[in-house]
Amino acid sequence: MALNLTQKLVQSHLLAGSLTPGDEIALAIDQALLQDVLGSLVMLELEAMGIERVKVGLAAQYVDHNLVQNDHLNADEHLFLRSACRRFGVWYSRPGNGISHPVHMQHFGKPGQTMVGSDSHTPAAGSLGMLAFGAGGVEVALAMAGEPLHLRMPQVWGVRLTGALPDWVSAKDVILEMLRRHGVEGGFGRIVEYYGPGLDDLSAMDRHVIANMGAELGATTSVFPSDDAVRVFLRGQGREADWIPLAADEGASYDIHEEIDLSGLEPLIAKPSSPGNVVPVRDVAGEEIYQAYVGSSANPGYRDFAIAAAMVRGRHVHDRVSFDINPSSRQVLETLITTGRLSDLVHAGARVHQAGCNGCIGMGQAPASGRNSLRTVPRNFPGRSGTREDSVFLCSPETATASALTGVITDPRSLGIPYERIEVPATVAANMTMLVPPLDAAAARAVRLEKTPNITTLPELGRIADSIRVPILLKLGDDISTDDIMPAGARVMPFWSNIPKTSEFTFEPIDDSYPKRARQNGQEPTGHAIVAGSNYGQGSSRENAALAPRYLGLETVLAKSFARIHWQNLVNFGVLPLTFVDAADYDGLRLGDVLDIQGIAAALAAGHEIAASVNHGQRQIRLRHDLSSRQIELLLKGGVINWLRERLGADSGGQPTQNVA
Amino acid sequence: MALNLTQKLVQSHLLAGSLTPGDEIALAIDQALLQDVLGSLVMLELEAMGIERVKVGLAAQYVDHNLVQNDHLNADEHLFLRSACRRFGVWYSRPGNGISHPVHMQHFGKPGQTMVGSDSHTPAAGSLGMLAFGAGGVEVALAMAGEPLHLRMPQVWGVRLTGALPDWVSAKDVILEMLRRHGVEGGFGRIVEYYGPGLDDLSAMDRHVIANMGAELGATTSVFPSDDAVRVFLRGQGREADWIPLAADEGASYDIHEEIDLSGLEPLIAKPSSPGNVVPVRDVAGEEIYQAYVGSSANPGYRDFAIAAAMVRGRHVHDRVSFDINPSSRQVLETLITTGRLSDLVHAGARVHQAGCNGCIGMGQAPASGRNSLRTVPRNFPGRSGTREDSVFLCSPETATASALTGVITDPRSLGIPYERIEVPATVAANMTMLVPPLDAAAARAVRLEKTPNITTLPELGRIADSIRVPILLKLGDDISTDDIMPAGARVMPFWSNIPKTSEFTFEPIDDSYPKRARQNGQEPTGHAIVAGSNYGQGSSRENAALAPRYLGLETVLAKSFARIHWQNLVNFGVLPLTFVDAADYDGLRLGDVLDIQGIAAALAAGHEIAASVNHGQRQIRLRHDLSSRQIELLLKGGVINWLRERLGADSGGQPTQNVA
Repeated sequence: MALNLTQKLVQSHLLAGSLTPGDEIALAIDQALLQDVLGSLVMLELEAMGIERVKVGLAAQYVDHNLVQNDHLNADEHLFLRSACRRFGVWYSRPGNGISHPVHMQHFGKPGQTMVGSDSHTPAAGSLGMLAFGAGGVEVALAMAGEPLHLRMPQVWGVRLTGALPDWVSAKDVILEMLRRHGVEGGFGRIVEYYGPGLDDLSAMDRHVIANMGAELGATTSVFPSDDAVRVFLRGQGREADWIPLAADEGASYDIHEEIDLSGLEPLIAKPSSPGNVVPVRDVAGEEIYQAYVGSSANPGYRDFAIAAAMVRGRHVHDRVSFDINPSSRQVLETLITTGRLSDLVHAGARVHQAGCNGCIGMGQAPASGRNSLRTVPRNFPGRSGTREDSVFLCSPETATASALTGVITDPRSLGIPYERIEVPATVAANMTMLVPPLDAAAARAVRLEKTPNITTLPELGRIADSIRVPILLKLGDDISTDDIMPAGARVMPFWSNIPKTSEFTFEPIDDSYPKRARQNGQEPTGHAIVAGSNYGQGSSRENAALAPRYLGLETVLAKSFARIHWQNLVNFGVLPLTFVDAADYDGLRLGDVLDIQGIAAALAAGHEIAASVNHGQRQIRLRHDLSSRQIELLLKGGVINWLRERLGADSGGQPTQNVA
Repeated sequence: MALNLTQKLVQSHLLAGSLTPGDEIALAIDQALLQDVLGSLVMLELEAMGIERVKVGLAAQYVDHNLVQNDHLNADEHLFLRSACRRFGVWYSRPGNGISHPVHMQHFGKPGQTMVGSDSHTPAAGSLGMLAFGAGGVEVALAMAGEPLHLRMPQVWGVRLTGALPDWVSAKDVILEMLRRHGVEGGFGRIVEYYGPGLDDLSAMDRHVIANMGAELGATTSVFPSDDAVRVFLRGQGREADWIPLAADEGASYDIHEEIDLSGLEPLIAKPSSPGNVVPVRDVAGEEIYQAYVGSSANPGYRDFAIAAAMVRGRHVHDRVSFDINPSSRQVLETLITTGRLSDLVHAGARVHQAGCNGCIGMGQAPASGRNSLRTVPRNFPGRSGTREDSVFLCSPETATASALTGVITDPRSLGIPYERIEVPATVAANMTMLVPPLDAAAARAVRLEKTPNITTLPELGRIADSIRVPILLKLGDDISTDDIMPAGARVMPFWSNIPKTSEFTFEPIDDSYPKRARQNGQEPTGHAIVAGSNYGQGSSRENAALAPRYLGLETVLAKSFARIHWQNLVNFGVLPLTFVDAADYDGLRLGDVLDIQGIAAALAAGHEIAASVNHGQRQIRLRHDLSSRQIELLLKGGVINWLRERLGADSGGQPTQNVA
């Protein structure tokens, strides 16, 4: 049977399950990617699991988020991560070396391999013909421990690209077009596979742009073939030997079909405050802006900065506009210097920041209140920029730069200047200075983890109870993001590996009384439920969005639907995720209602429905779970750490300190 | 009579007083410099004074401190400052354009002119043969309003430089040698005038290094002749027409004499946590470091970065070390790019930040707790780095970079590599893109100040009472800095122009109960006194270190001695600064003692002594003031804003909302 590329990549790593969509599959994992804010938790999880040394082929830890260092917390954490990399056999990418996704692509990405990463934009590696998944940190910890990755086989959504991009339209507009067509839930349960003659017009780094923001579609991942464009990229990195050709079989088919004629695209922009809120730039042209921002993992390529430089050369940015340049990697920064592009940017009035995630996630460069900021970043959820009342638009480097020059939102086609097709240097200034290799096993065993008061041991989580009777402590609407559950930004992120401290910020953007109410003003939490609308937990893969509420006593979430990664995170930390059989039951539930679920273990084993009663039997509602038998097993044990520790026969480290029921 | 250069500069601007040391003099002011954290207060003061347009020859506002932008506060303040510059006729240097002192030197500095700046490192302009003073913001506001600057004529301290610097020893080591010899109080009441054949070895930017850190000596300012080195510098900026020759008259003499043989110097370093704690680098060599940091206004020159680049070229920084490069200006950054130096730095593993003050004042790059950080910055007061338990050393770029390579404190002479004498390009990439000129008067009048909830109107301050009876709320030791009184860093600085909010942080590093005690848990403040040791208020010129305690009810400070700028700030905001006639009385005072001073106006007018009784007549102590009649007048009116407003006949804007007594 002719297979599409996704099926081929799955099949070559399949340890259990089949290619039938919906089947739970187990995949062998070749590589693991960690970034710093979630990496610390993963390291603590490896410690809690009793792991000696990572068993995955390659694991790399990037310090790219917590770079602001306004006090000791970030720097202390870098020392912890460095020690943990030395301890567990992990590559350590030092602060200032760049964003995980492009740096990984440059140095480690290999066509045909699988990867799991503790960052929702890990699928960017699909640009090299990898099969890469974003996941909660504990999924990455499991992969690092040598366990397979489990997921339901997604549908494969074939997107055939034809034609060539017009001037002033670039890769970002392709993924914005996907978001315009399908919105932020369009990719649920799907892997997007791009193919077709239009690929000839897209470099590997252009494909990174598209694969990266597949996360915003809600897709499980995105996949591109490994063709000559990939070969050219790897050759530039001095790694042509890592190249293999990969493509769908002749005559392969897809579960869903789509076609985009690149030549028909125009500059697009996502309005505040959702990546799905896409319109043509010309629809909003003329609005005053405060900021234009080029960089992030969603536009990380040399060309993305070089086109900005070409556009501002001999001009200067409007005196109202903060034109922020965030190099995605040290290598891109070096190349921009040697090609003269950085001079052009600086001379025109750009503010050049160190290589890293930076303002994309509120680590600096926050815009003024209520003023428009045009950014090439992947997300514009409210407040993610660091400014609570922000107004962030997502667009291409061309659109951001055109607007920087004029001071108002500008369709770059209207500038009336010639478009430069950027030549990417054939080879780049690759060097490994800031990538520290793992120690050998003997040296690693002697390394002690450099913990600080802020980097504690993980709290023990007890087994799930067989019956729960808990109040509904929050009732939420649709599209609640993990930014809503666990805010990011420079104020909170330094505490992300400190669960007791982090829990104080839980749901702060929505209801800052939640942690207090969960603790009933300082008591030990006694358990509660949360009710939510559809797409609960969209966005970043941060697992503290599951772990912190669990620490505060969350036992079950009832939602119309869940975003995939957060749903897994809930299961992994022993929270029962349930959906409504009858969506109307959502409307009937109120804050403070008491929810009863009896005989949970038996009900989970018996089928996919589970009954609950509301307010001591006043009303019955029907709920549904989508758990595999493996997930049921680990859920009942209180989460995946307990489960793995039992399997490895490691010492449990003492009695659980709280039982969730 | 043959005059030294200081006397010539004073005489050419003298409006009142004489050249006799100790005389109060009034100087005509040519230029005013503002930075952002204090600039907002100054703009609010101009508003409170009822000023329409600045009357000084040139005023420039730099945005160089509050660049982190972790939330809306910094960005909102930039918009306020931009609007205030447009309103009052001030140049606006945009965020990312660089640090006030080097940028001002590049674009506006003129030999023979006087300047006052709301930053204690303003004396750096002495490198061009200017007479430049750091002062509280309100002194700058007065200068901008066309008022002369008043100060006591300092002694002139002639420092004759002979010989030439050995390899690996640079300008920073010259000023560290001055600090080694004389400590942080050595310059009190003095202007340092450098002269002699050793100057031939020091470029204008090298002299900037020395003049800048004259502030750490406690000197009123530092002065260099305007000679060929200055001409070369101005020519490089395309401003040779601004050059005039300036030097001491033949046969001029000095109040104090000193000589430094440059050829006898070696690499020096100031240990934690005082700039006066200077030892040879070899004394502390071998200690592990966490960070090496090149930049700030204390080493702002192209050569300071270029020597670092030359040293790391073809090498790489130790994998333990965060090597932070903070370009001092966009112009220096551009030059480093075009000369290939930036490539060398980045390739070796440096973290390159945007141009600005940055980590020098805790805006990012804070070191790990208790780990050694080697910095080319001017100050290492405890916690100034942003890390409460920091360990910051001050040194030259050569020493910082040598240590970055080895991972331990390293005397650069011990590296065993050849020393490169840096060639500074004859002309530089000067452009004014990020320097926005003032509007014309008509356009300026139409501009509205863009205030935000965080940028309020100044609180009204009442007249000083004639008799005070107040408790001693704090008893402090020696060398209390304005960082101790009003902490800096990214957490606090965004609020610096918001006095009610700022007051909550007053004395936080020393006694965080102070604001609460001053307010007696939420009441209106009823008045209090502070007792301190010697050198009270050293360091930064931030006037909110006077204004915030005043807002909290501070009426008088009794100290063994005061740092000059803070002493002036106290007077300017209506706080009575007194010293002990008998230093032993300091020992006898305790927290909570009640201080009585009667008939203040008459006592101040009658002479320099003033009597106080302690604990309702239990004990009498003799105090001393050093106020001029002008200062007495404005002190009694409650400070300089009230005084000027009365003089200008401007509307008082309503009744004072509190009376200090």
